[in-house]
Amino acid sequence: MTTYFEPVGCAIDLATGAMSNPTGQYKKHFRDLDGLYGDAAAFEAMRAEWNDRVVYDVSEFRPRETAGDLIFGVTRMSPGKVGDEFFVTRGHIHRNADRPEIYYGQKGRGLMLLESPAGEVRVVPVEPMTVCYVPPFWIHRSVNVGSEDLVMLFCYPADSGQDYEIIACSGGMRARIVDDGAGGWKEVENPDWRPRDAATIAALHQAKPVEVSI
Amino acid sequence: MTTYFEPVGCAIDLATGAMSNPTGQYKKHFRDLDGLYGDAAAFEAMRAEWNDRVVYDVSEFRPRETAGDLIFGVTRMSPGKVGDEFFVTRGHIHRNADRPEIYYGQKGRGLMLLESPAGEVRVVPVEPMTVCYVPPFWIHRSVNVGSEDLVMLFCYPADSGQDYEIIACSGGMRARIVDDGAGGWKEVENPDWRPRDAATIAALHQAKPVEVSI
Repeated sequence: MTTYFEPVGCAIDLATGAMSNPTGQYKKHFRDLDGLYGDAAAFEAMRAEWNDRVVYDVSEFRPRETAGDLIFGVTRMSPGKVGDEFFVTRGHIHRNADRPEIYYGQKGRGLMLLESPAGEVRVVPVEPMTVCYVPPFWIHRSVNVGSEDLVMLFCYPADSGQDYEIIACSGGMRARIVDDGAGGWKEVENPDWRPRDAATIAALHQAKPVEVSI
Repeated sequence: MTTYFEPVGCAIDLATGAMSNPTGQYKKHFRDLDGLYGDAAAFEAMRAEWNDRVVYDVSEFRPRETAGDLIFGVTRMSPGKVGDEFFVTRGHIHRNADRPEIYYGQKGRGLMLLESPAGEVRVVPVEPMTVCYVPPFWIHRSVNVGSEDLVMLFCYPADSGQDYEIIACSGGMRARIVDDGAGGWKEVENPDWRPRDAATIAALHQAKPVEVSI
């Protein structure tokens, strides 16, 4: 008789940002985020206090990595700034770039910062009870623009994969999210950003996931 | 230049169970649910009061129906019973049966009632802040076992499709969820349930989604 994957319930704890019954977890420390922020001097100055602190952690449930399945989990992200720039996740495009993702705000005030291969920028608020749909082909990064933990549920196709290098290869994302000095945030241009060339963009559009049968 | 699908934020209103920026919505009235419950006489007796009432409604965001994309939305379901059996959704297996789904409890007390093609039964509580992972190949139906609206976020692969007939073809799901007379619920055997034959099960296992490129 066929053995089916067992259904499961995963409870999310808003106080800790953890999820029960995860298949995996990881943490990103401040030291892991070197190079992400515009103000390198401010980053260095923060190391004494922040170096070994966890900036964000993820609990995930990853049943399989085959096409057609889903991976979901929770991201918890501390509040903070490097210089005037709000804390961000590393950000990624999906390795199979035509895969989307949803983020569902649970706690705190966040943003999804998005960039198309051609360099179009979008910002979608991720507040509690708001789902952000990240369509295929968008590079995306979460930003905590609040003063408390940002907690989000995420879900994406199991064969998406993550390409974290695409952002570094362009000198960062085109926009940075900084303190506006009035209790809010604003989007500023990243002067180090370099457009992707046509071949790089074409390669992203070629994403051809492999269908795996079980 | 390529035009990308635009990112979007969809806010969920727990009071109404509605989601902003949906691409579609539908309602199921009591009259649409004829045949789902064990106690047909109790169903008929309720028609005078309930016939045109909405038992559950769905707001969804359906960007595309191509492989690798995601559909998400919100289901709101009224509390109630037909005889001693709690209100249920129609229930389905995915037309591409190897597609999974997640449900995330937001309000109320619910259950996910699951049945494998071979007739194995599982019950997963769907309480607020609990994600239920419905793995590939499981028939599933939501049950409101509480006294208030059940509100759940759902997300599934865009090429899943729904087969609602599989349940009727077996005389209903194998288990029914009924009032235990003590403020809770219990699972009882459905005497009308008929096992699926080997050919039907084999056909489900042959699910071969078509990969569509854009």
